[in-house]
Amino acid sequence: MTQALLVINAGSSSIKFALYTVADGVPTPRYRGQADGLGASIGSLQIRDNRGERLLHEELPESDGHDEALDRALNWLEERLEGHELVGAGHRVVHGGPEFSRPVRITHSCLHELERFRELAPLHQPHNLRAIHAVARVRPHMPQVACFDTAVHRQQPRVAQRFALPRQYENKGVLRYGFHGLSYEYIASVLPEHDRRAAEGRTIVAHLGNGASMCALHDGQSVASTMGFTALDGLPMGQRCGNIDPGVILYLLQNEGMDAAGIEDLLYRRSGLLGLSGISADMRQLLESDRQEAAEAVEYYVYRAVREAGSLTAALGGLDAFVFTAGIGENAAPVRAAICERLAWLGITLDPEANARNAGCITTADSQVPVYVIPTNEELMIAQHTLRVLG
Amino acid sequence: MTQALLVINAGSSSIKFALYTVADGVPTPRYRGQADGLGASIGSLQIRDNRGERLLHEELPESDGHDEALDRALNWLEERLEGHELVGAGHRVVHGGPEFSRPVRITHSCLHELERFRELAPLHQPHNLRAIHAVARVRPHMPQVACFDTAVHRQQPRVAQRFALPRQYENKGVLRYGFHGLSYEYIASVLPEHDRRAAEGRTIVAHLGNGASMCALHDGQSVASTMGFTALDGLPMGQRCGNIDPGVILYLLQNEGMDAAGIEDLLYRRSGLLGLSGISADMRQLLESDRQEAAEAVEYYVYRAVREAGSLTAALGGLDAFVFTAGIGENAAPVRAAICERLAWLGITLDPEANARNAGCITTADSQVPVYVIPTNEELMIAQHTLRVLG
Repeated sequence: MTQALLVINAGSSSIKFALYTVADGVPTPRYRGQADGLGASIGSLQIRDNRGERLLHEELPESDGHDEALDRALNWLEERLEGHELVGAGHRVVHGGPEFSRPVRITHSCLHELERFRELAPLHQPHNLRAIHAVARVRPHMPQVACFDTAVHRQQPRVAQRFALPRQYENKGVLRYGFHGLSYEYIASVLPEHDRRAAEGRTIVAHLGNGASMCALHDGQSVASTMGFTALDGLPMGQRCGNIDPGVILYLLQNEGMDAAGIEDLLYRRSGLLGLSGISADMRQLLESDRQEAAEAVEYYVYRAVREAGSLTAALGGLDAFVFTAGIGENAAPVRAAICERLAWLGITLDPEANARNAGCITTADSQVPVYVIPTNEELMIAQHTLRVLG
Repeated sequence: MTQALLVINAGSSSIKFALYTVADGVPTPRYRGQADGLGASIGSLQIRDNRGERLLHEELPESDGHDEALDRALNWLEERLEGHELVGAGHRVVHGGPEFSRPVRITHSCLHELERFRELAPLHQPHNLRAIHAVARVRPHMPQVACFDTAVHRQQPRVAQRFALPRQYENKGVLRYGFHGLSYEYIASVLPEHDRRAAEGRTIVAHLGNGASMCALHDGQSVASTMGFTALDGLPMGQRCGNIDPGVILYLLQNEGMDAAGIEDLLYRRSGLLGLSGISADMRQLLESDRQEAAEAVEYYVYRAVREAGSLTAALGGLDAFVFTAGIGENAAPVRAAICERLAWLGITLDPEANARNAGCITTADSQVPVYVIPTNEELMIAQHTLRVLG
């Protein structure tokens, strides 16, 4: 009997999931679904096949939460296994802390450990863990695997992971973790198909989604990331501030009378593109807007991306290729163009026509450093990891 | 009658001062002194001539503070003016906030404005202002000028000065100011003597002292700095943390039970080289130590300098020259060597022999990007500014 796997990526009010079946060790998606509006007055559960055709769309009653939604989804999927054995569920878990440098089978002690990192990723970690608990309740015997966005960065040189704090804080796990690791791992896995030389050399991958970071890869291994201890640092994001002077936090405490909860709300939910523009956290809306504030927010986004690209190039000691991925990276041609133009000094020569149509390579043939647009696939990485851990 | 000027640089327990006389519009130092241990049980006042010969050395009684020390120094200097007219005092003031983009004659309203920036530079601003008040008390009619470390950075592109916060914070003055501006201004003023092409082009100046930052100069104008709102951000320093994830501050508040005062003490006084090494904040001691912790602290210092150099090169769109200055920059050859070696990808080829003897140029003749060691002279900048403002 061949295997099937459930992949789960849980957010604050939604759960995305996919059923993969395995043939010859290769996981392939069969069904993909999403439960939305969990805890809200009207929720919904949708499931589509792998051609995108909708097979299920039902409303979730007001009382339905994660348990009920996952139970319904599993009931529907289990009826369609067609002889495959559902061997387990793999979850995206944003923060693996200092312990976890690879995916792990979830145990009670592992879950206990992961609870500690809730405050380090308040937008994600609590929701990731809630879905794990929900599966444990509705399918108590189903093996579960946690795949961490921090894991691939744990192999960075120690100097890249530290802060200049007293050493006791490092022992407490106050380190630069980096995030979006599943995305970087996927890009590293397919980069050889695009450019073998770059895959073995020095590449920056810009994961520009609602969250955003950049990673420096050397021979496919993460050597530095723009994100740090939490998912706040580095690039500005839709609603998150990115790089900011720690003295600003002290000022907000001492002069603005804010407390930690208020500052957390400010930096995680009211800053970034939303804060700068006062209009929207959505890059598409800002690019369509003709207001000065929108243009300024986009300019800031590009400027900080350029600064961080310089910083990561220094970590790598030069650059062989640059990759854009995730929502903005894969679709926002004007943002890519502006970043590439400001990185011309690195040997990047943009091909505007290729960039405008989101081509796989958006630089000219004679560009010293090629720039690629590669759609990311964190879901597939989770499926592969889960298969390996449980297989 | 020709003019004389007093230059004052006041710290927490010491005041450095110098008397300049002006000939043909050029200020020249005549006497240089220092009052130490102010407020401690044993203080001292020393004055030397411009060849370094000590002319005065007296103990200050326990009760002596800034007023008494400055009064004694002024009495001694005023007896030796030899016909010069003491036209005023110029002060180094670390933080000029959003208002001051050039040196100003100090007025009551100006002082009132500067008081607002105490918390943004707690190691310096209160002491700078205390010396201004002291001079006003002991010489009520003496004109005083404030020369700001933030001033030259106020002309940076707006995008380089912002944070990705809601716009109301920018209106409150929450901006990236940058510091060490008097040092950068001095280096920019003498760079044409070393390298005219670089002076008109793109240069990074690394001011590596007890405080440390880097500045990107384009045609002599600051376009970006590693320091931000306060003097905490950017490079690690003797006791200051430099770049750190804002999430670390939230963690210290929420999980370590620290308050703002405790975090301020941690980030300003117990971090940086001191925190990382657990040994010393002094680079000389770390370089002499054979302990692993010392080597790791130096490695971190170099690594972050390299990352920031990459970031500033990106702001400039390439690099024509690099300048080291201030205590560590002028004297710590192993630190310069390690930074230059990791910046070889920018076209820097170190000349180890020239570097070992702190030569003016420490790269080979064929180095694509030359690297200079130029002693800074913030005191002279203050004298020149003071003369111009009062002249």
